[in-house]
Amino acid sequence: MKNNTSFIPRQEYFDRIAKFQANIKAAGLDACLVHGTESDFANVRYLTEYWPTFEQAGVFVPAEGEAVLLIGPESEKYAKGRAVVDKVAMMLNYREAAEPDYPGIPLATYADVVKMSGCKSLKKLGLCGTAVMTKPTLDAIAAQLPGVEVVVAEDCFRPLRWVKSENELNSHRKAFKIAEKAVRAMLNEMKPGMTEFQALSIAQREIFANGGEYEGHSLYCFGGDRTSNGISRPTYAKLKKNEIIQLNIGARVGGYSSSIGIPVYFGKLPKEQMALVEFGLRAHKYTFELIKAGVDACDVAKKYTQWGIDQGWGDYMLYGPVHGLGIQETESPWIETTSKYKLQKNMTYQIDTFFTGNGYGLRWERGCIVTEDGCELLSKKFMSLKDCKLD
Amino acid sequence: MKNNTSFIPRQEYFDRIAKFQANIKAAGLDACLVHGTESDFANVRYLTEYWPTFEQAGVFVPAEGEAVLLIGPESEKYAKGRAVVDKVAMMLNYREAAEPDYPGIPLATYADVVKMSGCKSLKKLGLCGTAVMTKPTLDAIAAQLPGVEVVVAEDCFRPLRWVKSENELNSHRKAFKIAEKAVRAMLNEMKPGMTEFQALSIAQREIFANGGEYEGHSLYCFGGDRTSNGISRPTYAKLKKNEIIQLNIGARVGGYSSSIGIPVYFGKLPKEQMALVEFGLRAHKYTFELIKAGVDACDVAKKYTQWGIDQGWGDYMLYGPVHGLGIQETESPWIETTSKYKLQKNMTYQIDTFFTGNGYGLRWERGCIVTEDGCELLSKKFMSLKDCKLD
Repeated sequence: MKNNTSFIPRQEYFDRIAKFQANIKAAGLDACLVHGTESDFANVRYLTEYWPTFEQAGVFVPAEGEAVLLIGPESEKYAKGRAVVDKVAMMLNYREAAEPDYPGIPLATYADVVKMSGCKSLKKLGLCGTAVMTKPTLDAIAAQLPGVEVVVAEDCFRPLRWVKSENELNSHRKAFKIAEKAVRAMLNEMKPGMTEFQALSIAQREIFANGGEYEGHSLYCFGGDRTSNGISRPTYAKLKKNEIIQLNIGARVGGYSSSIGIPVYFGKLPKEQMALVEFGLRAHKYTFELIKAGVDACDVAKKYTQWGIDQGWGDYMLYGPVHGLGIQETESPWIETTSKYKLQKNMTYQIDTFFTGNGYGLRWERGCIVTEDGCELLSKKFMSLKDCKLD
Repeated sequence: MKNNTSFIPRQEYFDRIAKFQANIKAAGLDACLVHGTESDFANVRYLTEYWPTFEQAGVFVPAEGEAVLLIGPESEKYAKGRAVVDKVAMMLNYREAAEPDYPGIPLATYADVVKMSGCKSLKKLGLCGTAVMTKPTLDAIAAQLPGVEVVVAEDCFRPLRWVKSENELNSHRKAFKIAEKAVRAMLNEMKPGMTEFQALSIAQREIFANGGEYEGHSLYCFGGDRTSNGISRPTYAKLKKNEIIQLNIGARVGGYSSSIGIPVYFGKLPKEQMALVEFGLRAHKYTFELIKAGVDACDVAKKYTQWGIDQGWGDYMLYGPVHGLGIQETESPWIETTSKYKLQKNMTYQIDTFFTGNGYGLRWERGCIVTEDGCELLSKKFMSLKDCKLD
């Protein structure tokens, strides 16, 4: 890599673009436009290695011709130094949310981009990453590409990211090794009386010191009531004895994310909370057994849910039990009772075993790679009740 | 605060909503819908204290009635625990970019939200935060609110965030104190041979250990060529002697951001690079003199630009020289030659003194508060050439 941020060889990005172009052609489209933001950057990074900061970004991919990276007005040198694609266009609709004017900076339109890409005729354009595609981009498409038919085309692109290459798997493996170091340091150094943010200082230090390029997701360390939150953020609250403290710690390597989740405590937990910790770990390990290439995804969710109900903990289940893992820590495809696909070899998942009770909850979590025989766990550490007790 | 993440009293949030409602009414609108994402969350946090993670969020504010916080399907307990507003609705269009189905989770429509808010009649709806408002939200508005006239209404909301309260200023002051500690630790501990990410391990540790809730922006530490990038990200490249290494380090406190920028080096810089470092500092200090309540913003930019040209460094200027500071490290309003407003007391800015040359560049940066007599610098440290030399 020119800029030393990826473990994916240059050619692999071009192979991805070529596969995408084949899908675009097969769908009867002339081109697709992919969108990414600072926090939801996966689509753009997958195709170009570029990761915007402050600004947004896009990639215009013609069925025939060259992909063009689309950036905001401040990122020209950064993008040209980092992206694997040669063609880069600066556009106003990808600027910062502060919406500066940038007097004197020359900017492109989508009509210019179509020409740059070598796309001969644009009649039908597909949109990908529409979950994060913003109003300025939608407005610019309408204004700058009059008469072009625009359709949502997630299926042309999204499934490309499902099955991982060996290089992608190795990035995930490295990310989990670093996450393990960060969790270990937290278990060693956390003390009652520290704030949740202070406890995360330990993880942030370890992630960046040991080869992470960033956290894999916004890190979790929170206690008490808030352990019942499916999603949450840490606070200035102090770590207390005798209650569950939930950790979810992930590093990012070459773009690829990781997360390890474990409920921990100082002192002694109330009996019913300890029972949920113990049951959660059993449910977590039970899920490992359900994952295997060829299995219907919905069957994993249905079996897990039925098993949880049979074990008497159905009221504590909210969603899950497994979601896709990739550049984003939570990616498509999820494993839900409504899923309509089969697991394939080298798909990567987070086994996200979350239970929420009245005033407490917990999550056991780790990544895995689907294999022909079952699954390869991306971390085999922190799978014992002994790991949960911090003093 | 219920959840111990803000230094802003509860009542101040309700005062903000009331001012916003007065603007909505004055603009002839029945309500406004505000949007926020994980990375561009300022609008939503300003009104409710809520900061989404993984998901997006919105706030529906009727001209008369109660504001409703709009969240994704996974954040109910988190949002109800954190937000200052009582009314919270879960909606599919704010879900994660992975777009799970969430079978069995009950979700609201905008029509439901209008009723929850007590809005008697919705004929004209304003949109705010449209720079980050996504297609699923725009589509849901069109489908769920047929017949409602929809207009962009940034002016009803954006200027509310320009002039800061004493509580906001104190959050910024704390954020800069923490940024100073992080920069000091980096200057003390950085060594040639460390990767850029490893150098940032020091800053991340200090930010979270000393009362920060997060970085204030994606932190900068990069050397060589990449110092010429207006925007960039760190890499696995090692810190080298005899070249500029650019630091921009910011902490976030109670939502409010900070950033301190300084070019540093080991060994000795080539003469022309040292001259730019020295000139950059003079330009930075010159800018302090231009800022004062009552001054036309465009005059600051014009004087700065002319001064830089007169000093012989015009070719090294790209944009700037000052941008708004608030919950986002880069906020509206910028100070540009095209700006059409006057500086007011208690507006906060980043003095962002950036020069880009051929193969190198640098940035001196710090925040300030506009006063009647001039400006209060939010950090008075790291303003000397001695600070730049690390060995």
